[in-house]
Amino acid sequence: MYYSQMTDSQLKEELERVRAQYKQKQELKLKLDMSRGKPAPEQSALSKGILTVISEDSDCISREGIDCRNYGFPKGLIELKEIFAPIIGADPEQIIPCGNSSLNLMYDCVSDAYHFGFPESDKPWGKYERIKFICPCPGYDRHFFITQNLGAELIAVDMLPTGPDMDKVEELCKNDPTVKGIWCVPKYSNPDGYTYSDETVKRLASMECAAKDFKIFWDNAYCIHDLYDESDPLLNILEECKKANNPDRALVFFSTSKITYAGGGVAFVAGSPNTVKYFSDRFAIRVVCYDKLNQLRHARFFQTTEKVYEHMKKHAALLRPKFEMVCNTLSQELDQCGFAQWNKPRGGYFVSLNVMDHTAKRVFALCGEAGVTLTNVGATFPCGMDPRDRNIRISPSAVTEAELKQAMEILCISAKLAALEKLLSHR
Amino acid sequence: MYYSQMTDSQLKEELERVRAQYKQKQELKLKLDMSRGKPAPEQSALSKGILTVISEDSDCISREGIDCRNYGFPKGLIELKEIFAPIIGADPEQIIPCGNSSLNLMYDCVSDAYHFGFPESDKPWGKYERIKFICPCPGYDRHFFITQNLGAELIAVDMLPTGPDMDKVEELCKNDPTVKGIWCVPKYSNPDGYTYSDETVKRLASMECAAKDFKIFWDNAYCIHDLYDESDPLLNILEECKKANNPDRALVFFSTSKITYAGGGVAFVAGSPNTVKYFSDRFAIRVVCYDKLNQLRHARFFQTTEKVYEHMKKHAALLRPKFEMVCNTLSQELDQCGFAQWNKPRGGYFVSLNVMDHTAKRVFALCGEAGVTLTNVGATFPCGMDPRDRNIRISPSAVTEAELKQAMEILCISAKLAALEKLLSHR
Repeated sequence: MYYSQMTDSQLKEELERVRAQYKQKQELKLKLDMSRGKPAPEQSALSKGILTVISEDSDCISREGIDCRNYGFPKGLIELKEIFAPIIGADPEQIIPCGNSSLNLMYDCVSDAYHFGFPESDKPWGKYERIKFICPCPGYDRHFFITQNLGAELIAVDMLPTGPDMDKVEELCKNDPTVKGIWCVPKYSNPDGYTYSDETVKRLASMECAAKDFKIFWDNAYCIHDLYDESDPLLNILEECKKANNPDRALVFFSTSKITYAGGGVAFVAGSPNTVKYFSDRFAIRVVCYDKLNQLRHARFFQTTEKVYEHMKKHAALLRPKFEMVCNTLSQELDQCGFAQWNKPRGGYFVSLNVMDHTAKRVFALCGEAGVTLTNVGATFPCGMDPRDRNIRISPSAVTEAELKQAMEILCISAKLAALEKLLSHR
Repeated sequence: MYYSQMTDSQLKEELERVRAQYKQKQELKLKLDMSRGKPAPEQSALSKGILTVISEDSDCISREGIDCRNYGFPKGLIELKEIFAPIIGADPEQIIPCGNSSLNLMYDCVSDAYHFGFPESDKPWGKYERIKFICPCPGYDRHFFITQNLGAELIAVDMLPTGPDMDKVEELCKNDPTVKGIWCVPKYSNPDGYTYSDETVKRLASMECAAKDFKIFWDNAYCIHDLYDESDPLLNILEECKKANNPDRALVFFSTSKITYAGGGVAFVAGSPNTVKYFSDRFAIRVVCYDKLNQLRHARFFQTTEKVYEHMKKHAALLRPKFEMVCNTLSQELDQCGFAQWNKPRGGYFVSLNVMDHTAKRVFALCGEAGVTLTNVGATFPCGMDPRDRNIRISPSAVTEAELKQAMEILCISAKLAALEKLLSHR
């Protein structure tokens, strides 16, 4: 029976039952961290070959004869660009491989936009009293931090199963030249696991923007991170922007953090020829070169685009049972209660769970007291404020299946306990 | 006979002789690049062991149990900090190992100072109409570019054999709160090869600054890059700043770019506890973590501080003959002419040559036409403008000894030719 349909005495009875379950779980004295979307050690082990693929001095010379141990060649290695070009959806010359962190590239990009603006800008973003940035919610906390930290006003827009609420996005962009950008994780979004529909991509690419330097920060972090053979289709944002005569609107970010090593991968930026020239000019001031040895390791390890896809199937085989356990446990435990909603993603790293309104903080605390660390509640909203206090991001990848089973049971019990407390407090 | 003492006909005779030499060299059709201070392949080969020192999954776990393949632990590996702490001159907890580029750290630091200022700042540097930055000249072009690019006014101060002209530096800092920093390469300076005297370091640490957020950008890039057994002594800037009650004044930068791999080393930042907290807070917004696998490779390859010093002796053995050939050739060819001055550095990567005033650009062009690429003339001065057009930075490391011999002969002949043309044009 749904909690909403229960009488007071039924609720109290259920509360006693769930409290007893919670106490039992507490006694297990678990210590499980599900706070971040980290690959498991078994996933890292898939890339072992990368450690030794360059082992001799002669291995350090790239296809074009570049000594990757030395300075120079900030444009990055062509063999690596060719492998990832079809995945990123840009010609090799429209791609720059950089260091290990795509987040760092995004920070640098927003930071430089504050200092200098883009080539088409009227003035640097920092010269406005305050610029605005659109944040589809729930979303990725570290994206929001960057723009919050640099002083932008964050405008929350609902994330729908088709992507950001485009009616709202278009309305915001149309008349306000201080609306300068939008954060997007277009495929298997963090945390919902939604993939933007064709219509959403086309509308983003073609919508009218009062700011001629409006930028789509297209963080395609999970573009080949499918759990099943069939991948969610996603239109190519660079092509759509070009068709819509807004070729420089999208800045595409990508990394191998969840392909090879989360801490030692290669991050890429891609865009129109103008965008790539802009980034190259900025990089020329900032660095002599990024780590080309690590770029070369990646190129030699994968050799072809096809092998990257094969590699991702091995990740899927490790991740799929975990995601299915999360969704199955949620169904078994919460379907009958009627207060919770969640998605069943076909890729990515997260399951997004909405518990009863105004109970997520309590669920987080209850989980913590039973040894399960979740992502900070509210983190998926601008400034850490979930207006309905209901969204919980589940990151099933890093723990073992046995741990995950325990953690999910604790989460479900905590969600029920918090819901029951809430319902009874109003009566 | 010195050129300055020659009669017109003697000068003309010498011009004919030198022109003939130049033509002979041109016919060799050489193509030699001495534009940047890059290690030679034989130097990179000294670090071959680093390529395979981590080759198994179990190797990827740090002393503290951190899986270096994965996200997290932005403070960096303790085993690496311990090895480099005595070299950097800071306690391990005062050091943060980062990515591959110390230049990138310096850019980020100035950029963030523009956005936010430092904890002790009255306001962000970007909120001043224009801040000023002291640039000891000749100096490192990429330092100057960073502050020029961000809009600072660059103030040239003469580089003396004891370091920057401290009378001038003190005068600039004392009364002007918009003088916010100074670029320093304190040991084996780029390009002069001078090491700051004890007095210079003490004066920098203790001088009165109108800006309470005045920062010494202490790029100790060559701190263990000795050519001879005896190293130039350099006082510890962090200790001197602490003694002078200005503990947060110095920001210390260091990297293994010229110890292991120029393109794939590890860069570090160090400072007071306040400074390290400031950087940690900034990094928390910018990156999930830097490449810990590469940090671990470095720690495992070196194991101890002592082994880093042993490693540097191998670099010295490769570099010393080149530096001696540069200085000997300059002596043989130019001593007798009386118009040129140069240093004889005991470490670092450069020899700084002053040719006859107002001829450096011509020397650069003549070298280029004979196949020798030098660092752009003027690059060692703010905004690329050498007011006397006389400084040439010689980078002997990357070429072979045989090539270097040829290149130095061409450089000396070009310097003579330009001087003779200049002298005769005035008569």
